[in-house]
Amino acid sequence: MGDLTLAATAIVPILAGVFSLLYVIFIKMMHINKATDGTGAQVDIAREIQEGARSFMKTEYKYLSIFVVVTAILLTIILEIEDGGLGWKTAVNFVIGAVLSATAGWMGMDVATQTNVKTTEAAKSSLNGALKIAFKGGAVMGFTVVGLGIGGIGLVLIIFADIEDISDSDLITNDCVTEDHCKMKNAMTYLAGFGFGASAIALFARVAGGIYTKAADVGADLVGKVEQNIPEDDPRNPGVIADNVGDNVGDVAGMGADLFESFVGSIIASATLAKTPAQLALPFWVSGFGVVAAAIGSVFVKTNEGASQKQLLHSLHMGVAIASIGATVGAFVSILILFETTHDDLDEGWKAFGCIMIGMVSGILIGEATERATSYSYYPTQSITNAGVMGHAPVVIQGLGVGMLSCLPPCFIIAIAIVACNELADMYGVAIAAVGMLSTLGMTLATDAYGPIADNAGGIAEMAELPEEVRGRTDALDALGNTTAATGKGFAIGSAVLTAISLMSSFMEKTGLVMINLGDANTLAGLLVGSSLPFFFAAVTMLSVQKAAGAIIEEVRRQFKEIDGLLEGREGVKAESSKCVQISTTASIKEMFIPGVVSVLTPVGIGLFVGSQCLGGLLAGTIGAGFMLAVMMANAGGAWDNAKKYVEIEKAHGGKGTEVHHAVVTGDTVGDPFKDTSGPALNILLKLMSIISLTLAPLFTSKAFDGHHLIWGIIVLVVMTFIIIVYYMKVLRGATFNAARGSVILKEASETE
Amino acid sequence: MGDLTLAATAIVPILAGVFSLLYVIFIKMMHINKATDGTGAQVDIAREIQEGARSFMKTEYKYLSIFVVVTAILLTIILEIEDGGLGWKTAVNFVIGAVLSATAGWMGMDVATQTNVKTTEAAKSSLNGALKIAFKGGAVMGFTVVGLGIGGIGLVLIIFADIEDISDSDLITNDCVTEDHCKMKNAMTYLAGFGFGASAIALFARVAGGIYTKAADVGADLVGKVEQNIPEDDPRNPGVIADNVGDNVGDVAGMGADLFESFVGSIIASATLAKTPAQLALPFWVSGFGVVAAAIGSVFVKTNEGASQKQLLHSLHMGVAIASIGATVGAFVSILILFETTHDDLDEGWKAFGCIMIGMVSGILIGEATERATSYSYYPTQSITNAGVMGHAPVVIQGLGVGMLSCLPPCFIIAIAIVACNELADMYGVAIAAVGMLSTLGMTLATDAYGPIADNAGGIAEMAELPEEVRGRTDALDALGNTTAATGKGFAIGSAVLTAISLMSSFMEKTGLVMINLGDANTLAGLLVGSSLPFFFAAVTMLSVQKAAGAIIEEVRRQFKEIDGLLEGREGVKAESSKCVQISTTASIKEMFIPGVVSVLTPVGIGLFVGSQCLGGLLAGTIGAGFMLAVMMANAGGAWDNAKKYVEIEKAHGGKGTEVHHAVVTGDTVGDPFKDTSGPALNILLKLMSIISLTLAPLFTSKAFDGHHLIWGIIVLVVMTFIIIVYYMKVLRGATFNAARGSVILKEASETE
Repeated sequence: MGDLTLAATAIVPILAGVFSLLYVIFIKMMHINKATDGTGAQVDIAREIQEGARSFMKTEYKYLSIFVVVTAILLTIILEIEDGGLGWKTAVNFVIGAVLSATAGWMGMDVATQTNVKTTEAAKSSLNGALKIAFKGGAVMGFTVVGLGIGGIGLVLIIFADIEDISDSDLITNDCVTEDHCKMKNAMTYLAGFGFGASAIALFARVAGGIYTKAADVGADLVGKVEQNIPEDDPRNPGVIADNVGDNVGDVAGMGADLFESFVGSIIASATLAKTPAQLALPFWVSGFGVVAAAIGSVFVKTNEGASQKQLLHSLHMGVAIASIGATVGAFVSILILFETTHDDLDEGWKAFGCIMIGMVSGILIGEATERATSYSYYPTQSITNAGVMGHAPVVIQGLGVGMLSCLPPCFIIAIAIVACNELADMYGVAIAAVGMLSTLGMTLATDAYGPIADNAGGIAEMAELPEEVRGRTDALDALGNTTAATGKGFAIGSAVLTAISLMSSFMEKTGLVMINLGDANTLAGLLVGSSLPFFFAAVTMLSVQKAAGAIIEEVRRQFKEIDGLLEGREGVKAESSKCVQISTTASIKEMFIPGVVSVLTPVGIGLFVGSQCLGGLLAGTIGAGFMLAVMMANAGGAWDNAKKYVEIEKAHGGKGTEVHHAVVTGDTVGDPFKDTSGPALNILLKLMSIISLTLAPLFTSKAFDGHHLIWGIIVLVVMTFIIIVYYMKVLRGATFNAARGSVILKEASETE
Repeated sequence: MGDLTLAATAIVPILAGVFSLLYVIFIKMMHINKATDGTGAQVDIAREIQEGARSFMKTEYKYLSIFVVVTAILLTIILEIEDGGLGWKTAVNFVIGAVLSATAGWMGMDVATQTNVKTTEAAKSSLNGALKIAFKGGAVMGFTVVGLGIGGIGLVLIIFADIEDISDSDLITNDCVTEDHCKMKNAMTYLAGFGFGASAIALFARVAGGIYTKAADVGADLVGKVEQNIPEDDPRNPGVIADNVGDNVGDVAGMGADLFESFVGSIIASATLAKTPAQLALPFWVSGFGVVAAAIGSVFVKTNEGASQKQLLHSLHMGVAIASIGATVGAFVSILILFETTHDDLDEGWKAFGCIMIGMVSGILIGEATERATSYSYYPTQSITNAGVMGHAPVVIQGLGVGMLSCLPPCFIIAIAIVACNELADMYGVAIAAVGMLSTLGMTLATDAYGPIADNAGGIAEMAELPEEVRGRTDALDALGNTTAATGKGFAIGSAVLTAISLMSSFMEKTGLVMINLGDANTLAGLLVGSSLPFFFAAVTMLSVQKAAGAIIEEVRRQFKEIDGLLEGREGVKAESSKCVQISTTASIKEMFIPGVVSVLTPVGIGLFVGSQCLGGLLAGTIGAGFMLAVMMANAGGAWDNAKKYVEIEKAHGGKGTEVHHAVVTGDTVGDPFKDTSGPALNILLKLMSIISLTLAPLFTSKAFDGHHLIWGIIVLVVMTFIIIVYYMKVLRGATFNAARGSVILKEASETE
């Protein structure tokens, strides 16, 4: 059996990539470039936002390049020593993955900062026009991500598999069916580097971007809305531009990089776990057809003027539904062709198809569960608002409770999916389920990225002091964006967990670990340490936001105090917004350093010095605790946000300005770093640690744990403890320091009043 | 080798138990009974508290008896079918364990409610007198717990091992050295039932007690302090008695049952994992000598009049230090005697000794780390206070951040202890480390239980309107109690984790599982589900507090409204405190039902229907995530409490009544259910699930997972999902309902004003 060639495997993803990028160019040329920016203040504001976003991403990419270059060199050296040829190939793949992900992020940010003002302009005349242009902007980001992802991985597969040199003995020792199959199997060993590259970018984009966006948001709000009582997005507030920049770099570029990583990660994991040529080709084909299906679905997103929230949502759902049906058909056809061609057991094909369906359905169910936990149309979020009757603290407790309870549905959905897929097709089934879940990613990302664009459009309308109705239209789009954002986050976490588990299995496959024994004390120790890492990661990102927000607060207060006429809104007096952009940029890049280092070095250190058993436990612990914490934080944050909206929009318990409103605002402020910084950052942690373990798996193969490593293990743990304690002090001191300074300034401010 | 008899093994624990109980009687007769209650209002108040506590515990024990009887019958039936004779023996052990734990809880509560007023009386004349009597009360509770624990387990060992019938072939198949060794090994199979019994009581005592104490506290405070602006512990407030009852049933009886369980659980786990007669006897001896050492240490706790906080703490530390040295000597002697007698390799003995030391040191280090995370003398807690400058939400974020970061030191300490002990003596080493950590438990519990007694004494002083200086003295004792309580919580969690891990290993040993493979999808699914349970448990307990507090709030408001002259404090008008006691009692018992059922049935269901692989994953997931969440909640709660005290006592940021003070009060209110309900409840979850798995291990032996169970597994997961979703709705609806009613009442109240 088996005449499925390398070319046949790679052609679908490459063509899908080309198609996707052509579609992006088409949207860009035919829709976005043709839409007008309008004139006047809005254009200047949009330019300021764009410059801020570019400046942040340039700074980010500067540090990123250093990181990528250093890591590539280290990968080359370390892996070359272990196994000649492996090192440079892995390193090259790493660089390609990183560059492609960075490109997708840049393009997403770029188009988002172009489209925001066009959306504002379109909103002047029609809701439908505004929805369309905002959605097109999201689509450019979505299809750039999937296009570069699928095309890129298809290309590196064909290039690197082709240069593999296969002897007849390899056919037997590597357990492969044809020469091409062997070549691809070999190539998968260093294709993990591609995923690692994507992961590295995601780390920077999600963590630094997440800190940036919330620091600017919280900082601008606390001084503007709370202290000075000026409206949100008021042009006098020097922090507002930074806030709007944050939407583009955090929610657009960050989300894109996160899912780029899941997308390629799930393909790599399935291909690594594949036993037959058809199984190996399947993830590439399914994703490829999925990209096309998503493009078709995206065409169907439109609405009528004066559409209700429900109709808007329906319009998006319609697009998603069409994409899903298309992807199902694509998967069906893939199975038929691939398993027929290779004369593989078609039964195996249908089992894989079952897994793909399970993955897709799981994604939809998780989205649904997230919606129910976080929308104010349902009890959970309403109960948070109701708790506001008792005060601030009950709102916090109720929100945390809702967040924690909301962990259960996604957890059970994923657990059932894992058991079922494993029964159908072993761990390969789990990996291919992740591919299924992510097959319509282009569409999901489009609906997701459109939210921040609409949000920005509203901000621009406010700052440019456009008529009420414009802001009304963008608000409708923005509210819809909040719903899709919550669903998107559930989806991002679910796919991250499936991907991380598949990567962990691939890691076991590659290190030849037949088992990671939980009865082994070292595995258990690894599990405990692994469980603590998400808490560490969540804490430091949350505290970093607080710290960076403190710096913004200081700067905003300084400007209000020192710039004459700013607060009064005197003609010609402008806030120095770029300073806030600068502060946010520096702070966020600086703050991501230690969490980044810890998440990269922990698996490497444990793997090298304690062994792969302990590393397996570490990964499992991080996945278990990280999954729950990520869902909890994302959903609690979303629910708090909407509990506030329930008061503001539906006038629950008396509406704005009441005691209940103050209480839910506290909840919302706690929720900000939960949902937009720490929660999403945890996705990255799960995947990054797994992919690093997979990439460096060849190093760990020979290092099964034995007693001699004990001393190393203890040294590593002690050193980590030390580093963490030092950091712990640093974070807390930083916060203290800022707060103390804040206090002084507060006092000064009240004295000068 | 090996002439260590059953009698020799059991004599030390039995004698230690007898000694401990005699010591209790001595303290009771010579100190507590001789101290005077004083006269007047304080006696009536104390009686009311006592009656409230008794009424709660009677109600609790009523439901408990039903639970114990039903479970005992089920255990008998199920296990008898599996293996004749095993069932009734396990069931009898279960009942004995439950009865002993319940007795210890009752006696602890009883003496605490007697000692509180005596402490108040003593505080009229001297700080030293008050410390002494409060500490004696704590000591009665501590030594009742360890006395009944060690004596009880020694007795059941000798009784049940003695009736074992051993044939020569058993000697070979059971891998034992002597006939007595064989008997004891066999007996260990159903001695797990003893631990399960203790665990069942702990579940009721910790969860129901925890909900009770915080519901009453929050409810009384919100109406009294916040709405009506009357001081804490004001006799007019109908919720105050319930609040003081809560200290006795939650903090005294609950803590006692929790650690009773750890204490016997660690002994059972080590004895089950023991390979040689000396190893088997060691945990009984070490614990036995430890009890005596703790008693000696407790004699040294005294202080001078006008002692500073530091001197008071020093006095307690002195007692702990002496107890630790005594326990070390005891362990040393045990090793010498046991390993010499049996001619066992003395080297093995010294390795076990090393583990015991590692356990003791780990306990101390965790206490130290907890102290640093939660005391306002250190940065972390100060940083929370400082965040108050920015508002309510930053206090919450900073507190959560500090709580999350504070997971790392205990986690690393335990991880290092596990790796090191395993290296010395395999998993037996880990289990014996837990025994070492808990060897001085009598002393630790005494210092811990004394806190709530002092707290109660202060409450009585306030309610009886005694002079300022009395309250001043009890406040000094209470503040010290807060510190020891925080340390005690860290210790409780650390020992719970070590015990749970040892129990899990014993479970593997008994089911003959050579490994729990994390590469197996079912194990991974179990791990994910297991990780979600602590979040579920934490959420429902937290929300239950909120719900029950709502009911108290209503009742207190009703009384203030309907009882003429109550609020004005008219002579002869008394609050109907017993109604609040009744409400708290009913609510807390009702609320613990579902979390209790879930934590008991999940391991049983998974073990029976999915298999022991998945169950192993479940336990590991629960231990990993539960450990972190428990530390996070306990420490964040403690830190918030002290961040508030930092403002109130040290006048940080201006002291009481400032904006910063309001912000830290919000933090403290969020922290209340964190530190006193949900956090401690998680200890129980970890241990209960492990001990159930161990008790029912014989059922699971034959059920290694295979494909046929898949359908069962999915059914179990789906049913669980359903139950949980129903509950989810119920909890949230309940909260909504209460809050909505609260809102109505709030409105009425403001209308009538």
